[in-house]
Order: sequence, then structure tokens, then C-alpha cells
Amino acid sequence: MRATKRRPVVRLRRGATADAADIVTDTRADTLAGEEPMEIRIGGVAFTVTMRTPGDDFDLATGFLVGEGLISGAADLLRIGYGPGVDAAGSATYNIVDVTLADGVPAADPAIARRVYISSSCGICGTSSIEQVTKQSWFRVADDPLTVSLEALLALPELLRAGQQLFRRTGGVHAAGLFTVGQDGPQLQCLREDVGRHNAVDKVIGRAAMEGRLPLRGTVLQVSGRASFELVQKASMAGIPLLSAVSAPSALAAELAEEVGMTLAGFSRGNSINLYSRPDRVTG
Amino acid sequence: MRATKRRPVVRLRRGATADAADIVTDTRADTLAGEEPMEIRIGGVAFTVTMRTPGDDFDLATGFLVGEGLISGAADLLRIGYGPGVDAAGSATYNIVDVTLADGVPAADPAIARRVYISSSCGICGTSSIEQVTKQSWFRVADDPLTVSLEALLALPELLRAGQQLFRRTGGVHAAGLFTVGQDGPQLQCLREDVGRHNAVDKVIGRAAMEGRLPLRGTVLQVSGRASFELVQKASMAGIPLLSAVSAPSALAAELAEEVGMTLAGFSRGNSINLYSRPDRVTG
Repeated sequence: MRATKRRPVVRLRRGATADAADIVTDTRADTLAGEEPMEIRIGGVAFTVTMRTPGDDFDLATGFLVGEGLISGAADLLRIGYGPGVDAAGSATYNIVDVTLADGVPAADPAIARRVYISSSCGICGTSSIEQVTKQSWFRVADDPLTVSLEALLALPELLRAGQQLFRRTGGVHAAGLFTVGQDGPQLQCLREDVGRHNAVDKVIGRAAMEGRLPLRGTVLQVSGRASFELVQKASMAGIPLLSAVSAPSALAAELAEEVGMTLAGFSRGNSINLYSRPDRVTG
Repeated sequence: MRATKRRPVVRLRRGATADAADIVTDTRADTLAGEEPMEIRIGGVAFTVTMRTPGDDFDLATGFLVGEGLISGAADLLRIGYGPGVDAAGSATYNIVDVTLADGVPAADPAIARRVYISSSCGICGTSSIEQVTKQSWFRVADDPLTVSLEALLALPELLRAGQQLFRRTGGVHAAGLFTVGQDGPQLQCLREDVGRHNAVDKVIGRAAMEGRLPLRGTVLQVSGRASFELVQKASMAGIPLLSAVSAPSALAAELAEEVGMTLAGFSRGNSINLYSRPDRVTG
């Protein structure tokens, strides 16, 4: 399974005595998270490369293209499959994903690719790029009528953790979970793990896009780490009205969330949570 | 100070009773980590954009160029300064850094920029790109005679934490610290914090390059989070023989460390540590 790899590791541990030379050493096989490059091509032309944990590669590519504003759902894709990459031994690497856009969907020429690369990093000037992002989003989250109880919101990190199989085995991956929160409490719709936090989010959004579920109105996206500008941008492009992070958001993440009318929660720590924008969606 | 921003935050906390409606709410000003795009230009031509915490921008640009194999030290730079970016109000953004390479240093044409972008994400095929990286590195770490006691190595995360002023205020940034470890124990040489883990490392390496200290033989780089392929690559390009992470490495990070002869440590947790490559550098 390429999502993980087994490798020998030397573990050093302080012994029971105070003597600094008292060290317990053991060598054993350890499970590490897989990390491999994946190139996304559009019509055979290289578009971007991301370091990702192999698995759900088509979801990742689809979610990435949604986040970049190139497609708004599966209907904009004609075909998606692995490209022709082989390693030194001649075996297929499965590290190239080639996408063919549907008729009428504007092709990504090199100039667009350049612009998109910049856009994924937010552009030259914070203010103007935030404006660009909000303008280019397919979906509008500001008027989403979602409300979530504090109780349900605080429960999400633990529900996420319970599903993090890769983290349990490696201790080294991020996770993103998409939830609905109705009368019967939070329901996990999709969970993905990856060495890259943005990849985990792309995989979740790409899966939903494949299932024709965009925009993701009324959903909550819970992530395992911090909330960067990029994650807010991706959630916005998929129409997700509430993004909750276990750890801190950046200032720009909070500003973009406010700009697009998304609820951004951070430091979700069991008994308390911080709301950086649109706190009206969280109820008692 | 642009490294942080103050924003209002609504904090919700469960009350003392079991009643789900018993919620304590307070609104206050919170300190968030700054995150803004920075474009690196070479001779006025856009080379890359990174989302970073403002501060030490010239170190960041210099370290990034070292990591990409374009320069091997400050002598390869003729000039470095802010470019002409302004925001909507006409104020300078200080988000463009323009670098002029010294005479004789090959210029980065668009084709190189493209290649470098891919290289920073490791290339199309894991195996072949690892070979490319090891070939293109300026410095060789495999024969660095550094040895470090387990005691000293285990002390680094706490020494790093003690210096993380931005983390203390925001709870939301990564850190990288460069240490020497001699007879008198670990000595912190340089510590940098950033919303991007790779940026923190670039800032540390860039500072050292500015001071003419590359290759960083005999040093240890301690990072606050996980060890990705990219961090091992950057450490290798700067000639650092030992990279230690508080959390897990990826499989590819361990493979690259082994390939270049770097000691890669992970899960440095006070009393124990894992060594994924070249364990011979850690002594009792």
C-alpha cells in the first residue's frame, strides 16, 4: 500500500537511571506516511505538481481544479486518468493524472497556468488578491442559512480523530472531514488524510464534486491543524459555509473568511472554540 | 508589526453546568499570525510566490534560492531589495523582493523557473528526482564528522520552544532553529518562525548564507513539526548534516536523508527519539 511505507528505525530512549550513558536502543520496522509528487496535466499539458500521499488521486486532481476555479463540478470533466509516467525500473508511477475538460470549458493555456499558480499562493498583493478570489468563486457562502450548535461543533475534532487511520499508524498526516450537522447530530460524509493539509481538503472536495454535490451548502469542514488562507479559499470555492480548525488561523485566513461570509472557527479544543468570522451560525 | 495582526474574536466556552445551553461567551482582541504573499523576482522577472509571515524577507528569498540550487552563498548575490508593489491605497506592500544575481551566476530564464517550481515539489518521479537533487546539491553532508549526544539532541525542542515568541502570542506558526552542539552543550545560532514550515527553514538558511556561513557543517537543524521531503532537501542544499523534527517524517524524507547521508531524527519527545538514517551520529 503506497499510502504508507515500512522502514527500519532506530529508537533511542533514556534508561531508568540518571546516568546519561544509560540508553535503551532498539531497531524495528516503522510505518511512515507515503509522500510522492503528483503532476496534474490538463489535456496533456503540465499544470501543477503537488507532494501528496498516494491514494484518491483523481479526487485530489478534481478538488484542486475546483479550488483553482477551473471547474465547478464533475460535468466540467470529460475524462480523468493516469498519465504515462514510469520509474527507472520501467514500472508505472501513477504519479501523473491527466484531465480532459468537457467541451466549452475554457482550456488552461500556459498563461492561465502561470496565473493559477500565483492565485494558489494568493497573488502579489493581499488586498487585491482577496478581491480576485471572492469574485472568481463559483458559489456564494455568505447567505447559507446553516446553524450549528456549539455542542455539535466541539464534537467534530474527536469524530475526525476517530477516523484517522493513517494518522494512527504514522503519526504524520493531516486530515480533513466533511460533516453534515442535523437533528441527529454530526454525520461524517467524507474523511481524507494526506501529508499536505491542502491535499486532504482537495481530496474531500474533489470526491464531493465527483458525486455532483457542489456547492456543499449546509456542510462543515473540520481540519486537523491550522487554517491557512489557502484552506479558506478552497472551502469558499466549494461553497462550504463553515470551516473549523483544531489549531490557529492566520490573519489572512480570518480576513478572507469575513470577506466571503464564511464562519471560521479555530482552537476547537473540546470545551471551547474561537470564532473569527460570522459567529451567528453557532448557537447554544 | 506585520508579523502579527490584532482581530476581534468571539470565544465560546461550555459553562459549569451540564446544560448544553450553558455557554460562556466573550469577545476580545486576539493576536493572529500574519500571512501575506511574497513574490521573489530575479532581475525583475517573477520567479516564485510564497505565502509567508512578513519579516526577514531578504533572508527568506536568499534561503529559497539556496534551496533551489541557484546560489551557494551571499557572494552569488549582487543586490537584494524590495520591488515596486503597492496596495489599493498606494502604500508599499513590501511583498515583492527583487534579487540581482552576481556576474557569472546563470540567470533564471522562464524555462528554469518552470523547472525549479517542479523541483521544489520534487519532480515527476520520486526516484529520479531524488537523484537529481543529490546531484545538484552544492555541499556534501555524508562525510560530515558531527556527533551529538542523545542528551543534547533531546534538549533541542525545549530550547526551540523557549525562543518561539510568535508562537507564544499566536499559537499558529512553525519554527526552525539552527544549533551548534559542542562541549558546552547546544547553542542556538538562529531561530525563525513562519506560518509556512519551509519558510522558517529558508529564513534560517538564508541568514546563514548572508553571513557567509554556508555550508553549515557541524550544525543541527531542529524544526517544530513534521519533516517533509522538502525540508530534508533544503537542509541538504545548505550542508546541514542533522535534521531533527518534533513529529513524524514522511517516507520520502527518510529516503532522501539516507541517500544524501544526513541524519534524520523524528518524534523528539523529551525522553526518546527516532533515527531514520545515519544513526551513527548520535552517541550516549
